[in-house]
Formats: sequence, C-alpha cells, structure tokens
Amino acid sequence: MGPHPAVAAIRLAVRRVLHDIITEHTPASDTRRAPAHGVTRPSPPDAERVPAPGTRRTLPPARPRHEQPSTPLVLVACSGGADSMALASALAFEAPKLGIRAGGITVDHGLQTGSDLRAEEVVLRLTEMGLAPAECIAVTVGRDGGPEAAARDARYAALDSAAERHGATAILLGHTRDDQAETVLLGLARGSGIRSLSGMAAVSGADGRYRRPFLHLDRQTARKACMVQSLPVWDDPHNTDPAYTRSRLRHEGLPALEKALGKGVVEALARTAQLSRDDADALDAWASQAEASVRDAAGLLECAKLYALPPAVRRRILRRAAIEAGAPAGSLFARHIEEVDRLITGWRGQKAINLPGKVVAQRQGGRLVIRQG
Amino acid sequence: MGPHPAVAAIRLAVRRVLHDIITEHTPASDTRRAPAHGVTRPSPPDAERVPAPGTRRTLPPARPRHEQPSTPLVLVACSGGADSMALASALAFEAPKLGIRAGGITVDHGLQTGSDLRAEEVVLRLTEMGLAPAECIAVTVGRDGGPEAAARDARYAALDSAAERHGATAILLGHTRDDQAETVLLGLARGSGIRSLSGMAAVSGADGRYRRPFLHLDRQTARKACMVQSLPVWDDPHNTDPAYTRSRLRHEGLPALEKALGKGVVEALARTAQLSRDDADALDAWASQAEASVRDAAGLLECAKLYALPPAVRRRILRRAAIEAGAPAGSLFARHIEEVDRLITGWRGQKAINLPGKVVAQRQGGRLVIRQG
Repeated sequence: MGPHPAVAAIRLAVRRVLHDIITEHTPASDTRRAPAHGVTRPSPPDAERVPAPGTRRTLPPARPRHEQPSTPLVLVACSGGADSMALASALAFEAPKLGIRAGGITVDHGLQTGSDLRAEEVVLRLTEMGLAPAECIAVTVGRDGGPEAAARDARYAALDSAAERHGATAILLGHTRDDQAETVLLGLARGSGIRSLSGMAAVSGADGRYRRPFLHLDRQTARKACMVQSLPVWDDPHNTDPAYTRSRLRHEGLPALEKALGKGVVEALARTAQLSRDDADALDAWASQAEASVRDAAGLLECAKLYALPPAVRRRILRRAAIEAGAPAGSLFARHIEEVDRLITGWRGQKAINLPGKVVAQRQGGRLVIRQG
Repeated sequence: MGPHPAVAAIRLAVRRVLHDIITEHTPASDTRRAPAHGVTRPSPPDAERVPAPGTRRTLPPARPRHEQPSTPLVLVACSGGADSMALASALAFEAPKLGIRAGGITVDHGLQTGSDLRAEEVVLRLTEMGLAPAECIAVTVGRDGGPEAAARDARYAALDSAAERHGATAILLGHTRDDQAETVLLGLARGSGIRSLSGMAAVSGADGRYRRPFLHLDRQTARKACMVQSLPVWDDPHNTDPAYTRSRLRHEGLPALEKALGKGVVEALARTAQLSRDDADALDAWASQAEASVRDAAGLLECAKLYALPPAVRRRILRRAAIEAGAPAGSLFARHIEEVDRLITGWRGQKAINLPGKVVAQRQGGRLVIRQG
C-alpha cells in the first residue's frame, strides 16, 4: 500500500523541484532548460533574463566542473507550521533517493516570548527527520517598512547567510497555493498593475536559490500530510490575529469571495499570478529594449518617439526613468506616472511635475527631462 | 450658489466625454488625439489599433466633411436605475451648452411582469428632461451564454440599431467605478489572464460608439445626484437577488474584501482594470507582429523560433493559432494553451493534444501543426 494521497502529493511536489535542481546543476546539457517532469517551466526569477523582442534566449554558461560540489545540499526553511513541516518531511524522504543531502533551518525572530524554545523544538524535529545540518538562527528584526516586511527581510538575510555558509544549492520554502492567492489579493489592493498581481515566483533569489515546491498545492493537503505522518505542528497566533491584513484576508476576505464567486477562486488567483508574472516580464523586456530607441544623442527622452509607443510600454519607460533619477520605487504610484505621461499625450504647456524623492519631470523643446531638482 | 457636489461631479464627467466626442468628430485637427481636458486618453477600443512594436501610430483619416451631421446626436442608454438616470440628467444639462442634441433609449427586456409599463415611465422621465428622441425598444432575450449574457446581447443589438436609425454619434452607458470593480473580480475568478482583468473600456464598440463617462465615479455619487435632483429611480430586484453572482459580489464579496484590505479596494480594482487593459493591448500587438516571424515559408509555426519568444508572447500566438484553426475562444482555457506550450518548451515526444472544437495540436519535424482533426 502506498502513502496517504496527501503525503504522496507533497513528496511528488518536492521530487519535481529536486529534479529541476539536479538538472540545472548537471553541467552542459540541453535538457537543463526543459525539465523532464512536464510541469510548466518556472519563469525566470528576474525580468532581465527574458529576451527582449527580437532577441534570442541563450543558455547560461555551464558551471565549470570543479565548482560542482560532489553531493548537492538542499535546505528547507521551517517555521514549525504545517506547511513547512510537511515540506521538511517530504525533503527528508525524497532527497536521499536522489543522492542529495538535506538540511533544515529555522529562524527565531525573537518577537514572541518563548520563540527561542519553540525554535529549538523545531530543530529537534528536523534532526529527528534526519536533516543535517539542522539549525536555528536568531535574528534581530528592525522596523523598516513595517513589522511584516522587517521580519521578512531579517529572515531572508539569515537564510541567505546560512545557504552560503553551508554551500547549499537551494532553499525550499513552504508557501502554498493559498498563500499565493492571498498575495495576489494583497497586490490587487495596491492597484499598481500586473507586477503586483504576480505573487511569489516558483524560483527566486540570487541564482534561483529559493524554490517554492508547494505553490500549486493547497494548504489543506500540507496540513493533512502532517496529520497522517503524526508530525506536531505549531500554529502561529499571528496567522489568526485580525490585526494583520493577511490574517483578515485568510479568514474573512477570501472565504466571502469564494462564497460569492465559487470554490475555484484560490486556483484562479494562483493562475492569475503566473500569467501576470509572464506578462510583466515580457513588457519589462520590451520597455528595456525600447528605452534605448527613444533617447536622442544626448540621452534625453524624445517626446515624439515616446508618443509612438503603446501606453503600457511608454509608462514603464517613464517609471524606470523616474527611478533612475532617484525617485524611490515604493513611493512612485501609478498616478504619478500618469501625470508624467500627460506631458507626452496631453501636452498643453503644463508646469514641471514633482515626483517623490525630489525628482522633477518637465517637457522642454520636445524632450522629457526627469531629474532630481 | 453652484450645484450640489454630486451633481457637479456627474456633469463634469459627461462634459469631458462630450468634449472628446466633439474633438474626435471635428475634421482634420491634430488635437483630436490629445483631449483638452487632461484626463488619461482612453485606450483604443480594440487591440488592433495599438501599434505593434517598432511601428508608429498614425492618425485615422478625417471623415469627409459631407458626412458630418450638422448637429451631432448623443444618446443615453437608461434603465431607470440611479446610475443611468443620473447620466441622463447630466447629458440633458450639458449637451445643449455644447450644441449637441441629446436623446435617450430604454430597453424593455420583457423578463419581468410590468417591464413594459416601467419602460414607458422611463421614456416619460427622459422626455421631461428634454431628451429627444426618447424611446423604448422591446427586445426578445434568447438563451445563448446564460440569462445575463443573452440579455446583454439583446440590449446592445437594440442600442446599435437605435444609434444607426437616428444617426447617433455616441451612446453613453452608466457603468460606474463600482461596476468596474465587480467586473474585474468576475474576471479574476476566471483566472484566464490580464485581458479578463481589464474590465469595461471607457470607449468601446464600432467606431468607439459606446462611452462610459462614469467609469471613474462611484455609485454613491450617482445615487446622491438623483436624490438632490428629485429624480425617481428604479431599483432592479436582480441587483439584490443572491441568485446572481454579481449581486453576491456586490453585497457580500466586495464588502468583505474592503473590510480585510481597506476602503481603497474599489479604486484599486478600477485602476487595475485600466493598467491591465493597456498591458493586454500591448502584448496582443507584440504577438500579432511576432506571429509572422515565427512561420516558415509554408506558413507553419517553427518550434525553435517560438521557443525564443517570451512565454507571454508565445502563448498568445498559440492561443490565436488554436482559435484560427477553429477552437471556440470561450472554451479555450489557460491549461489548454499550457499543454500546447509544452510541445515547445518540454518536448519529450508527446502525443497530439486535443483542444476544444475538435482542434488538434501536434509537433512534427520541428513544426507545430494546429488544425481541425
């Protein structure tokens, strides 16, 4: 008799990602860009890797053989919650079969009393599963960008340093399809375009270090897999605290949306993420290529050439130019870019436009000048 | 003392659109593409009008002078509900000041008892406002695509024929920002990509006939404007009937989402619609241009050339090819296109893939053949 369907599902998801990792780290082979398992190839982790219109995609150079560690190490980031405990268990099961070493890291954010004890308990569980190294990293959470963003920054910095210290090939993260759906809705609430609808990438970080094997798996499956494997799980009280936007979304917003629109909403949101990501990558590539062609000899943006571009491409170029001039990306909203765009499409002698970061945009003799004032 | 702010808001929205209509129908002037009022120029009503990458936008030829009616006629489509009653009142107020004739049409769908009497009452209200012509058109609603789609089809057919009969330049529709937000969420539930997130266009239909002046205005403003002008409004019971998805969304889904995410959700959804529309138009244009370059001398799609394109562009070409081969667009889902895409990106000798409409996609000697089997 095979494993419980939930356990089979989490193992399959991890096996596919481990396969990808092995394939990508096997030197010089054409198959590295076409994974054998038949699921959609993850889009490149950053827009720069998408070929601009008219250019051809080229394979990255194969890593020299002497750099290949004899046995790759894959780490799992584990909070002790159901999703990442299920992930750790699947990694512990699948990795040895593929000749991969498997380890686990838990991060102690120090934000709740007893978090250090809980982290030690997680390390114990990881060790019991056979993961080595299994370690806890204590971090100090700052305040930049709000509590959730600061905790995330501290966590990824700790994971990055652990990966480098241990020479790990990849770090697995336990985000599920439900997390992805929530992320898309959070992005939707910003109303800042399709990049913010694209959720989390299946592959992200430096060299595609971070992998999210459960992005197509629902949270219920991960929880079930823990239950049937008798894995104790820890429920973070933050996840049910209505003070957190994500928690309200999870327990009120999404269920109400499902009631109105039907059960497929989570899946539809996750699919929207993937499609939006691919679309945003392609448009960024287009903007990047078009940008060179709309500058004059002095490097200034020519209004007539900008006007000839589709609005979606033109506004991306304008946004990029404002950021290059010093406007902080996080404070630059769609309405700012629309106002700059009207210097091109609705010119009637407007004054200079003030943007965040003391950046000023103005039209001068058929050129658009964007610079710090 | 000026009018109530709500009345001022609806009138301003209509005035802007009437200005656009006048500008567009004034022959031979460069200003026709750059509306004077300074709001964002509406995107072209169909993707084909977006210039492909590298091409230049050209002005459409000016309409010969003898075709210009001496006084343009603008119609309002009015159900008797608050949104379209407010719209009718604003049109009746603004049109004469701009030398425009204003008329109103109400459509009797014959789906509720007494709908004919109600329609006659709407005509009476429109006449009292000074709209001429003011008329009711009775339609027979079929069953194609479900009751809501069938009613919509019948309604637009009636409006189109009325526009042609009266030689109307435009028909104003009362959709508000709230309707737009609901439409985006309905599109999101389909999970079929950014085109379905792009909601309703500010300008649509043949020759840009349909205009939606209230797309940036909230429903509450329209209702308030009716109230302060003592205009009786009719509340369609369908709008509160939980049997309808849109009604559930309006009364349960969106309020829950606002509670979780904050009050700006409706505005964010409406902005997402506009940004998604521009993005989808640009990518359609790119796909349309790239398609020619990936076909061989015999017109077959070359897999190697398709592979070199960004996924977003490649999948649009594949979708288009499947539809051209006879697959019905409405039955062709993202998962179908993904499966065809794997013939390009994950080739391991797959069998032919069956698509809706008996269309078959297969890879043969480096070519992708998509045809009705």
